[in-house]
This record gives sequence, structure tokens and C-alpha cells, in this order.
Amino acid sequence: MKTAQKYELHENRYFNPNPVVRKIAIELYQKVKNLPLICPHGHVDPEILAKNRPFSNPTELIVIPDHYIFRMLYSQGISLQSLGIPLKNKPPIETDYQKIWQTFADHFYLFAGSPVAAWLNCEMTQVFGIKLKLNSKNAMTIYDQIQQKLSSSEFLPRNLFDRFNIEILTTTDDPSDTLVHHREIQDSEWSGKVIPCFRPDGLINIQNKNWKKNIEELSRISEIDIMGYSNFIEALEKRRIFFKHMGAVSTDQGVTIPFTHELSSIEAEAIFNRALRGEASENDSRLFTAHMLMEMARMSIEDGLVMQIHAGVYRNHNPFIFEKFGEDKGCDIPLATEFTNNLRPLLNKYGNHPKFSLIVFTIDEATYSRELAPLASHYPAMKLGPPWWFNDSIEGMIRYRQRITETAGFYNTVGFNDDTRAFPSIPARHDLCRRVDSDFLASLVARHIIDMEEAHKINHALAYDLAKKSHKLDKT
Amino acid sequence: MKTAQKYELHENRYFNPNPVVRKIAIELYQKVKNLPLICPHGHVDPEILAKNRPFSNPTELIVIPDHYIFRMLYSQGISLQSLGIPLKNKPPIETDYQKIWQTFADHFYLFAGSPVAAWLNCEMTQVFGIKLKLNSKNAMTIYDQIQQKLSSSEFLPRNLFDRFNIEILTTTDDPSDTLVHHREIQDSEWSGKVIPCFRPDGLINIQNKNWKKNIEELSRISEIDIMGYSNFIEALEKRRIFFKHMGAVSTDQGVTIPFTHELSSIEAEAIFNRALRGEASENDSRLFTAHMLMEMARMSIEDGLVMQIHAGVYRNHNPFIFEKFGEDKGCDIPLATEFTNNLRPLLNKYGNHPKFSLIVFTIDEATYSRELAPLASHYPAMKLGPPWWFNDSIEGMIRYRQRITETAGFYNTVGFNDDTRAFPSIPARHDLCRRVDSDFLASLVARHIIDMEEAHKINHALAYDLAKKSHKLDKT
Amino acid sequence: MKTAQKYELHENRYFNPNPVVRKIAIELYQKVKNLPLICPHGHVDPEILAKNRPFSNPTELIVIPDHYIFRMLYSQGISLQSLGIPLKNKPPIETDYQKIWQTFADHFYLFAGSPVAAWLNCEMTQVFGIKLKLNSKNAMTIYDQIQQKLSSSEFLPRNLFDRFNIEILTTTDDPSDTLVHHREIQDSEWSGKVIPCFRPDGLINIQNKNWKKNIEELSRISEIDIMGYSNFIEALEKRRIFFKHMGAVSTDQGVTIPFTHELSSIEAEAIFNRALRGEASENDSRLFTAHMLMEMARMSIEDGLVMQIHAGVYRNHNPFIFEKFGEDKGCDIPLATEFTNNLRPLLNKYGNHPKFSLIVFTIDEATYSRELAPLASHYPAMKLGPPWWFNDSIEGMIRYRQRITETAGFYNTVGFNDDTRAFPSIPARHDLCRRVDSDFLASLVARHIIDMEEAHKINHALAYDLAKKSHKLDKT
Repeated sequence: MKTAQKYELHENRYFNPNPVVRKIAIELYQKVKNLPLICPHGHVDPEILAKNRPFSNPTELIVIPDHYIFRMLYSQGISLQSLGIPLKNKPPIETDYQKIWQTFADHFYLFAGSPVAAWLNCEMTQVFGIKLKLNSKNAMTIYDQIQQKLSSSEFLPRNLFDRFNIEILTTTDDPSDTLVHHREIQDSEWSGKVIPCFRPDGLINIQNKNWKKNIEELSRISEIDIMGYSNFIEALEKRRIFFKHMGAVSTDQGVTIPFTHELSSIEAEAIFNRALRGEASENDSRLFTAHMLMEMARMSIEDGLVMQIHAGVYRNHNPFIFEKFGEDKGCDIPLATEFTNNLRPLLNKYGNHPKFSLIVFTIDEATYSRELAPLASHYPAMKLGPPWWFNDSIEGMIRYRQRITETAGFYNTVGFNDDTRAFPSIPARHDLCRRVDSDFLASLVARHIIDMEEAHKINHALAYDLAKKSHKLDKT
Repeated sequence: MKTAQKYELHENRYFNPNPVVRKIAIELYQKVKNLPLICPHGHVDPEILAKNRPFSNPTELIVIPDHYIFRMLYSQGISLQSLGIPLKNKPPIETDYQKIWQTFADHFYLFAGSPVAAWLNCEMTQVFGIKLKLNSKNAMTIYDQIQQKLSSSEFLPRNLFDRFNIEILTTTDDPSDTLVHHREIQDSEWSGKVIPCFRPDGLINIQNKNWKKNIEELSRISEIDIMGYSNFIEALEKRRIFFKHMGAVSTDQGVTIPFTHELSSIEAEAIFNRALRGEASENDSRLFTAHMLMEMARMSIEDGLVMQIHAGVYRNHNPFIFEKFGEDKGCDIPLATEFTNNLRPLLNKYGNHPKFSLIVFTIDEATYSRELAPLASHYPAMKLGPPWWFNDSIEGMIRYRQRITETAGFYNTVGFNDDTRAFPSIPARHDLCRRVDSDFLASLVARHIIDMEEAHKINHALAYDLAKKSHKLDKT
Repeated sequence: MKTAQKYELHENRYFNPNPVVRKIAIELYQKVKNLPLICPHGHVDPEILAKNRPFSNPTELIVIPDHYIFRMLYSQGISLQSLGIPLKNKPPIETDYQKIWQTFADHFYLFAGSPVAAWLNCEMTQVFGIKLKLNSKNAMTIYDQIQQKLSSSEFLPRNLFDRFNIEILTTTDDPSDTLVHHREIQDSEWSGKVIPCFRPDGLINIQNKNWKKNIEELSRISEIDIMGYSNFIEALEKRRIFFKHMGAVSTDQGVTIPFTHELSSIEAEAIFNRALRGEASENDSRLFTAHMLMEMARMSIEDGLVMQIHAGVYRNHNPFIFEKFGEDKGCDIPLATEFTNNLRPLLNKYGNHPKFSLIVFTIDEATYSRELAPLASHYPAMKLGPPWWFNDSIEGMIRYRQRITETAGFYNTVGFNDDTRAFPSIPARHDLCRRVDSDFLASLVARHIIDMEEAHKINHALAYDLAKKSHKLDKT
């Protein structure tokens, strides 16, 4: 009988195979690998850390919430129902979590060469101590091993948070959220730092189906009766102050097109009123979003919150899935994105202001060297967010550094953020980034473009300092 | 006297010079290099294999039919006439094939670093046993050597086909083609498998100058009197069935913009009738093509033919050449292409259907990571065609894998196709691809991203399995 | 006490760390490193060489005229005033050049990994013999060392020109320029060759605020009373002949969009007259520029001047800076650029003409493989300018070669140009390019794609021959 394949996560994974470069990369990586994790942007549910209840099972922890995983399975003909993805407002059809895990394991080969495999192999080994690479045969063994771990106190969310060495974790929250879970964490004896981020997309996109409901909720929570545009602005400002009071240092906005344009208050009022009456046109919506980006920038200068924009995605591209399962089901597809013209009004008005901090994310790589690096290497207010989403991967990060660095340098970028809702994958993501950055710097050292002293300094900045500084976390 | 430069095609050509990576690449390549060739998409004239006549001479075999070759010479000021390219409907001006070959050899240095040189060096050595690299001095020696080979029975088309180890060769054919050459091959004693592919561009583009003539031919061959849109659809469906009966497994459509849009049958009928009267507008044409992509998808679900779309080329960009020499003279120039919005209607309606198979090609590399990989890694019906045309080259293929793999994995791609009309270059093209894929996988193994077991399995899939499976050739 | 860090510019800088590739790269580089410098496109002020006065001080020589340097400092919050950048029509606020140099040195770490650092480290060592890498501590020592050199006769502009081994230096000049400095150089005993280039942007862009003034100056200098469009064309033609007489071999045009379109003379006349009356619309301007590109091509065929187009930049993106400090302050931001459709009218009419030479530059890298390489590898008149501006860097040049070569080969490109106004950085820029090209060729040799004989020949062409030939400098 053949023994099970012995599997070891390679200690030099992701490093350039050239021995000269690899040696330098290892030396650089050693100095940053244990630095605390700064997580300035992400989607972990704060309730997990507020309640600190044990995670239920491997499938509900790893497969069901991760659209990176189930989108790939879906692309190969496996239905979302069979993977336990809940129908909108209904319980999941498939609740045999072991069966779902087996399906996942049967198709784990699909992820070869993808960041999902990189993260998962690392998570399995380093978080759960699994010494096997997931496949059809060992699926149940591994399921049981993880399940057993999850029931131990060592694997309670807060203990994992501490073990992961997370210095600060930022969530993403609706302006009308009470932030009750953040408060619960703050009021607890646990010292973990979990802060909210103000994300007003549902209030700013007047074509959002729930927009009126969102406005009503904002009215209620802000205790401002939103009768028109000026109350709306007032309520947003009030909620931003509340978020700031609760520890927030930043806001975040996702827009399809990063068009910015300032309306007169009369125009803004008129559109807002049409939206309230359900009579706003598509052009109204486009202009209102463009205007609200200007307003959010103005508010950022006033209250000091760092402004994040991420642009260029067609949300819910597949209505068949959207109608059955809702948002965030792996159906968001990038679009070509234009920044030079679109951001000009905003940058012209606020981009030279010393109190303004703007971080721009994209997943249209064609803009890295063409638009984003040139903009960030000129306007003092603007910095470049990390390679985002589909590009948060080994090759994606390398391309980002190769195309950004020569124009914008390292210090107009903001370090890494994991942007994840998959809590146990956080250390794996940061580790991947630290390895890739160390390797990139090593390739510069090996070509005598920078020296080791510079490389160590930059590597520390990329792994730790820049994420803190650019999100003003060094001031909290 | 200096002896002629001894030339040897290097056995490790195209592999990474890093010895760690190269060793792995060689090991991987050894396992796939002799696999049979699957050619699911190409432009070889089936008459060559039906008639099995000897090829005439090196110039008519290699130079005159290959627009990759003569476009480069033209770009450096050499007239097409002097290269023997026939004027439309007239015999070629230059018929001294040795003189043309000499001109080609004099300028072969222009191709250094290009895939043409890679293919040709490989073809010369491995097909024709030439031990010299083509240059001005050895031009006539090489011409004579090839000429001599071409007159031997070993170099008859069918013998080359067998020697090339081609398992299946797909041609590209007009819907009104009788497929007489395919029938002749099928009826012969020769066992070579040559199948047609249904390409209706001339019927779907109502602005094509020959459109009415094409409709008349379709009427005649289908024995359906095409009086309007519904007959037109009926005739297309009938011809698809005939093609399928003749072995076809796929259709192919080339469009400038991959815009898809469903018309009502009344609208489609109205446009079709305007086209018949010669009164269709540019917008009519745009809408009709968009609608016919929807219809071709519908038919694919019904008859099971795999649908191929390749988009994003301005055909016959140079009217000076087009008017004198006609189509396919190296004057097709790529355009920026948008898929996320354009394919949405088609993918929304058919992209979740288990019986639909869509393969999308592009030569706009900016869409690889931005649009195509995300679409293919979500919609079950969609797969990504290979790096196409200008990008079917060493660096082009590397960029394709680097930008596609991390999002779509390997199994949402369809392996290689040679897409060529240059029959004797087929093995060289597949060999180049197998080397580049082996090398790409080796670079993953050397960075410990995948292990050797995975690499071997993926490499076999890329070299053989995926081309068969994605074109349903495993079912014929 | 710690001794100052000993710093040596590495002799193998920028070469691939793989020893196989590096060895080949060094061998290739040795053969081209000392070739004379051909500078067919640049922005050095000819007065420097006409007057041959000593350069004033390190800050005025290196920092103040270089928008690559001060844009990066500005992006990190340092005001342009404090860097001595003069306000429009006013003397600079900060004139303590040592203080400015100190600020530059304090922030030199920002440039790590950028071409500015590469050029400056090389310039410092090889031109000024500085053995330290600039930092806060050694700033004043280095300042003094450079200052001392600048006062010696060895560092007079003409002596530097000779020492740099510049064979020919091209400036960029307004059509109404008297070229008095060029004449002064020609009439002097010094043998250095400095030629003008005809750049009519200020006359062709009818929206330029100074357009009418520019037309008046053109009237005056050409001694043609420009009453309408036909006189305007006549005056341009006359000035081109004058430039040619003064040694010019080329023209240059910068356009936002490379749209080309021929107007009837009646339409052109009408727009020109509206412009004279200050009544031209934005569309008039768009059409007039498009038409003037056609006209410049026609003139090029007539007088033999090579035509350069560089496209795709939003000039003066930041009005706050533009209004205070004027043009060329690091505020030009690239735009997505389309060539396939836009250049078609021009290429259709003139692209097949044996007397026409067109060089196209872009900084939208997405067009390298998609549009530019395919166009240049077909149209005999068109060649590809070098990677331009933001892309004139190690990684930028590698991407250019990787994306251009396989389609267009090496011989449809035009070698390097430094495009700089920073005179003492010229040798560093050429050296960087020669190293990167040698390394790129070495990577082809190491993968057995080309052989050493080919590599040496191509490398010589890239370093010297192509720049001369494509700008017709081999004929002067």
C-alpha cells in the first residue's frame, strides 16, 4: 500500500528560483515575517470577535463564505445550491457539510496556480497544522482534523486574532450600523483592536433598490429627519463623527466609474428630491455619485478621515445568480477604468490640500503605469491602494510593483491590505505579500538598483509602516 | 575559406536559463513532447489533403501564403508584387520563385526574436532536415534541398500529416461550402481525420460586399428559398446540421466588437429585409451581428456545436493593399476590445446553460486579467481561447498564462490551437507551445506554488486533454 | 566614529542576476558601451552650448529644471516654492541653493527603484566623480564637490559634450525661433553637432492661449503676411525649409489624441478664419489638429523631414500648479490612447509612400502589442519610437521590448532617444538603455531564440545604427 503523500509547505515558497535573488529575498523576509499585521481594509464580520463563539465547521468557515472558492467551482458546472450557498432569505438547500467539503476537495485541483490555493495551503498548515494537501482521498480526514481544532479554545476567534499577531483590524460598515459589535469589543476585557470603516455606497448610489429604505434608516439612526439634500449631508457628517468616535480612521466607496463632478447645491437638491420621489434618471445617478465623491473629499478634509475609492467593477453581472443568491457571489466583473479625466475635478479641488488623504484602488492593471502611478507621483493627497482583488496574487503583485515603482516609488503606495472576509486566511495573505515584496526588492538588489540598506528600510515600510501611516493609524 | 556556420536547433530552446527551472521544464516537456497533435482551429486548405499532390516549391509553400512573412518584408519597403503575392483575380507578377526566396533569405534577419523565426527554424530543421540558418549566402542551397524533399513521396501532404502525428485537424469553412474535400478525405482509404468548422461571417455581416451573393449561395446549397429572416435562420440551422454530419464539432465567428444583443423577430426581419434591399445602415449591421451571436448561441445549445468568438480586429486596415491584393494580406490591426458589457446579454441568457460551450479569443491583452479571466472563472459555459495571433509567441504565451492563471486557473482554458494556414509549420507551433507551457509550469514548481505531480497533470491537460475536451473532440 | 558608507556604482548594474544571462549581457554590452551617442530627440537648451558658460550650481543644474525630481518631492508634500521653482514671470522665492539641495538629499530615498535614482547615481559617479550615494548627511559635501567641478573648464558645456562622446544632439524648437543659438554654434570653431527639430504645436493647436500671438510671430519671421489658411501653410513650409537648411532632419508634434482627418481646403480655411476671429469651437480645434497632422505628413514627403508624433497626454492636469508655475511642472498625466482608428486616414494616404517616415511615440503601454507593433510591422512608412517618458526606465524598456519585438522585430523600432532637458544626465540615460537592451538580447540568446552573432548585430543597431538611420542622420 502506498503511503499518503507527505506534504510540506515549502519554507522558500514564492521566492525567485535564482539562488542569488532567493538568498537576498530570504534575508529580507526574515526581518519582516514576524511584524504585527496591520489590516486597514477588510470585510471580517465584527460579530465574530464580539461574540467569540467557536467556528461551526470547516465548510461554513472556509467554503461557504468565500466567493473565490465557490465561483471557481461554479465555473466548472457545480451548482451553488450543492455547495450550501443560501438562497436569498431562505436556508441553504445542501446542509451536509461533509458532502460539500468532499466536493470542494474533489475539485481542489482547479485552484492549482491560483492565490486561493496559496492561501489555503498556508492556512491549513500554519493555522490548522494539516500536513496533507487537500484531495479527494484525504478530504474527510482533514475535515475531521479541522473540526476538532475548531472546538478547542485555542481556535476561538479572539485567540486566533491574538495568535495571528493582528495589531489592528478594520471592518467595513454601513453608515446606519449601530456598531454594537465594535462597542461590545471595546467594552470587553479583550485588548484586540477592531475599528469600523464608513462605507456609504448604499446611500450614495440613488439607483440602489434599497436606497429609500437606507435613507430612512439613516434618518432614524442619526436622529435627523432627512427631508432633503442638506439634511442628508448633515446626517452623513454626523455619522462620520460617530464612526470616528468609535475608532474609524477611514471611509470607503466603491463606484463603477470614478467620475467626479461638483454640482451646485440647487442641482444636488433637485436630484436628491427626484430620487426621493423615485423619479431619478440614470444620468441623475451618475452625477449624484460624482458629486458625492467631491462631498466625501470635503468632509475628509474637515474630519480627517482617510478617503478610499475603489473603482471599475460591474457588480452582479449574472442576474440568474443575483436573483437567486444575492450579492457577493463571485459575479462582479472588472471594467476598463479611466482615472485621468474622471478624477480631475476632485484632484484639482482637493488634491493639493495638505489635510486630504485619498487612496485609490483599481483592478484594471492597464492604468497602473499609465494613469495611477503618474497621478500619485504628482498630487500630494493621493496614494495608490494595493493590487486589488483579482490582482492580490503572486503575479498580480509583481506586475503592480513593476509598473508602479519606477514612476511613483514605494512611498506613494500604502502597503498591503487583505480585503478579506475569510478571517483565518489573514496571516496567509500577509505572508504571501511579504514574501512577494521581499522577492521584488531582492530582484532590485541583485541587479544593483538599490542596496541592502535601502531594501530593508523599504521592506519594513511595505510590511508595516506604510499601512499605518497612510491610514493615519500611527496617530490613533 | 571559412566553413559555413554550423547550425543546430538547440534542444533546450525557449526554456528559462535558470538551471533549476530549466531542469524541471525539461522533465515536464519530455512527457508531452510526443503526444499527438490536436488541431481544433485552423486554416489549412482541405484540398491539400484531399488531392495529396506534391507541394510545388519552397516559395509557394512557405513564403507566398504566409502573411506573417510578407507583412514584415512589406513593412521594410519590399513590394508585395516582387514577393509573388497575386493581384486580385490576376496571376502573380513575380513568378521567379528562386528570386523571391533569395529576397526572403536576404531579409530573414528581420525576423530575429519573432515567432516566425522560431517556427521556421524548427520547421526547416525538423521537417526538412536543413542544418543551416537561412541567410543570403545559403539561400539557394536551402531552396534546392527543400525542393528535392518536396518531390519525394515522404513529403506528400498525407504522409506529412501522419508523420506530424496529427490526431485531428480542423479546417475553417464557409456555410455554403459543399465540403467536397472533406468528403473526399472521408471516402479515401487514408485514415487521417480532417473536420470542418462552420464560419458564417460572410452571412452575418450584412455590410460585407458579397453578402447578397452569399445569401444566394446559401439558398442554393441549402435548398431553402431565403425570402426573409426566418428562412435565413432555417438555412443556417440546416447547414450546421450538415456540417455536424460531416464531423464538425464547432462554429467560429470573427467580429470587430463582441457586442451581443437580442432583437425581436420583427426587428430582425426588418433589418434583414433592409439588407436584402441594400438599404441597411451601419447601426442595422451592428445590431444584426449582435443578434446573430445570440442566435448562434441558441443554435449551439440545440445542436451541440461549440461556439467560438474571436473579436477585436480592424480587418483590411490598408485599402491600398486590400484593393490590389484582397484579404488576409497582413493588414488586419487589433483594436481595444470590451467584453464585460458586450458579452453580458449573451452570457446572461446562455452562460449558465449546461449544454452551452463558448470559447472566446482576443488579441487585446489588456482584457486577459481584467475581463476574460474573471468572466471565464465564473460563467460555466465560457472558456478562454489561447493567446491568439500576434500573441501566439513565446512572450505572448507567457503573458497569457501569467495574467489568466491566477484568476481562471488552467481548467477554464482550452489548450493550444495553431490557427494556421501554413501546414508544414504545425508541429513547430505545437512544440513551441508545449515548451512554453512546460517552462511556465516549471517556474511555478521552482517557486513551490505547485508540485511536480500537479505540474505533470496540468501539462498533459494543456498539451492534449483540454483541446479535446473543450471542443468536444473526446466525444467524436 | 563610523566611516562614511563607501559607495560604488556596480559595473554590472541592471543586468539579470542569472549568471548565464549576465555573462552574455556583459559580452554584448562591452561592444556597444563606448559607441558615440546619437541624440535624435531632446530638449536641451541650445543656448547652453552656444554660450558655453559654466553651469551655476548643483541645484540650478540638477534639481530646478528637472520635473522628474521635483514632482516626486511635491507628491510627498514639499512645496515647489521651497524647491526654488520660479513662479510664472517672477523670480524664485527660495534662492538658498544649498538649502534646496539639502531638502533634495533628505528625500532622495523616495527615488529608490526609480530611473531618476539610476540616472543620478550614474551621473554623480561618472560625470562628477562622487563616491557617495546622496543622503542627508553628505548633502553639503557632495554639493561642494559638484560646485567645485562646475567651475573648472573641464565642465564647460562644450567640453562635457565632447567628453560625453555625443555625435549629434537634436534640440526641439518653435517654428518662429530664429535658431540664433544653432547658428552661433555652427559659426563657432567648435565642431559639436547640434541641430534643431521643428515643433509647431503652438501653431497647430488653435485652442492654445497664445495661438494668435504665435501666428503673428510666424508672420513676422517668415515674412509672409498670414491672412488665411493658405498663407499659414506657406509660412510653415517656408520655416521647415529654413529649419532643414539649419540642419534639421525631423519635425515633432505632441497631440492629446492622434486623430487624423483630412479637411477640404474650404473647411480648413473656414476653421482657420474662425480661429483668427477667436470663434473656433472645441470640435474645430479637434478637426484642425487632425487635418494638420495630414498636412505635416504631406510636407514631410515633399521636404524629406522625418515626422514624429507623440500622443496621449493630458497636459497641465493640475491648474493650481499651472497657474502659479506654468508648463512642464510634472503635471502632465497620460491617457488611454487609440491608434488603429485614429491613424488610419494618415496611414491610408501616406503610409505606403516610400518617401514618408513616421515615428510614433506613446506612453500607453496597452497599445504596444495591440496596436503599435502591428501597425509598424505592416506600414512601410511607420516606425515605433522608444518607450517614452514614464516608461524610459529599466522595467519600462523591458516591457517595451517584450511586447514589441515578437510582432515588429527590432528593425521597425528607432533605437533610443534620451528626450531630456537635463544635459549632464545624457550619458547615464544612454548607458541605462544600452545595458537594458544588452540584457534583453542576452535573455534571448540564453533561451536559444537568437544566436550571439545576431545579438551583436542587433545590439549595435539598437545602440547606434537605428537612431541614425530612422532619423536620416546617416545622410547628413
